[in-house]
Amino acid sequence: MKENRYDDEKFFKKYGEMNRSIYGLQGAGEWHDMQKLLPDFCDKKVLDLGCGYGWYCQYAIEHQAQYVLGIDISKRMLEIAKQKHSHERIEYRQMAMEDLKLDSESFDVILSSLAFHYVKDYEELISHISKWLKKGGDFVFSVEHPVFTAYGTQDWYYDENGNILHFPVDHYYEEGQREALFLGEKVVKYHRTLTTYLETLVNNGFSIEHVIEAKPPLEMMDLDGMKDEMRRPMMLLVAAQKK
Amino acid sequence: MKENRYDDEKFFKKYGEMNRSIYGLQGAGEWHDMQKLLPDFCDKKVLDLGCGYGWYCQYAIEHQAQYVLGIDISKRMLEIAKQKHSHERIEYRQMAMEDLKLDSESFDVILSSLAFHYVKDYEELISHISKWLKKGGDFVFSVEHPVFTAYGTQDWYYDENGNILHFPVDHYYEEGQREALFLGEKVVKYHRTLTTYLETLVNNGFSIEHVIEAKPPLEMMDLDGMKDEMRRPMMLLVAAQKK
Repeated sequence: MKENRYDDEKFFKKYGEMNRSIYGLQGAGEWHDMQKLLPDFCDKKVLDLGCGYGWYCQYAIEHQAQYVLGIDISKRMLEIAKQKHSHERIEYRQMAMEDLKLDSESFDVILSSLAFHYVKDYEELISHISKWLKKGGDFVFSVEHPVFTAYGTQDWYYDENGNILHFPVDHYYEEGQREALFLGEKVVKYHRTLTTYLETLVNNGFSIEHVIEAKPPLEMMDLDGMKDEMRRPMMLLVAAQKK
Repeated sequence: MKENRYDDEKFFKKYGEMNRSIYGLQGAGEWHDMQKLLPDFCDKKVLDLGCGYGWYCQYAIEHQAQYVLGIDISKRMLEIAKQKHSHERIEYRQMAMEDLKLDSESFDVILSSLAFHYVKDYEELISHISKWLKKGGDFVFSVEHPVFTAYGTQDWYYDENGNILHFPVDHYYEEGQREALFLGEKVVKYHRTLTTYLETLVNNGFSIEHVIEAKPPLEMMDLDGMKDEMRRPMMLLVAAQKK
């Protein structure tokens, strides 16, 4: 079963209250790092896998992309995307990225923001992405960091008074399904090692251009819980190029 | 001050009792992964930074290296190296790798096994390595994994009965000095993020070829404590190429 928590009404409402949903890219802690990894979009054909509200689709269009295809499994997500980020050169399609069929070498840029940890078969997905991307094309994605996904609960370890002691890591090399609480709801995610994230790219004809563990920017440090994000890596950003 | 615990008699004796000291490369948990990253040594000039007993120097010679220079800060280490792995095409020099001065583009291959976490200024070292290496040359190294070095003590987190609960991560983005117990002795090491390890390579003209978190091989699983090494990543192996 493909994970689609975002079509659950309660979950979706809570997601809508997050800073990244209200303020878009500027409200996302990883944006200042992610932005530096994005390629030139001018006249490019762009695919966004797990496009959500369509913030990245809109960004690509604002940077002169020729055409953007945004894919998301969630109907509710795409309803917002169409309201907020409609454009004659953006096409939205509701489907699981695992089911997507596209022509070989049909895109110049492929993006994905915080979606691959919901995908069970990463190897197969990367082999498709490699096929869809033109030679020399750019592939940039963010995922939850393996340190963040390994243990499973994605929660800190606390002392008896509820103070954070540290972040726990366990079962690191046991890849596969985890059940975490996100926005107070149970969500199924998939843990993979850093090795798998990167070597799968190498094995599918990509060169690794950048590997960045997103760090909260100074101007967000006063937000609730943000200082603690200096204690563990939570997000992994990768830029790769099809050789 | 450059870290040289290995010239402490008690520490050095304990180090000599480790499997990797007795059995060499075959006794090291990361070897089966590391071996795959090593380049063709035939007719190559090879530099080994922190060569210890000289196991890698010997390996390069056995694989037809033209010349091998092994550098180590520890006099005791090099005494063993000269006893065990002497060869007319191996030269050993006792010095800190931070103080090494070499001609530009004078080596085809640069190796380092589990030594860079003792080095304070990684950026400077990498800029030197980039200078010393010929264009197209190979740079392969192992370090303690950032997950392993972040917290500081490098120990598991236990319950009241002494059972392992998990491995703690903290202060991840605070790079710098840590004091850990290794072989029962206090040792100074330096924590760096994965981002720093990899992006410093990119910024110094390297392409990232492979990033592997060494996993204990099946045939070592029955060794004391080895099964627990499936619960956390302990070593990071990187292969890069000078562009």
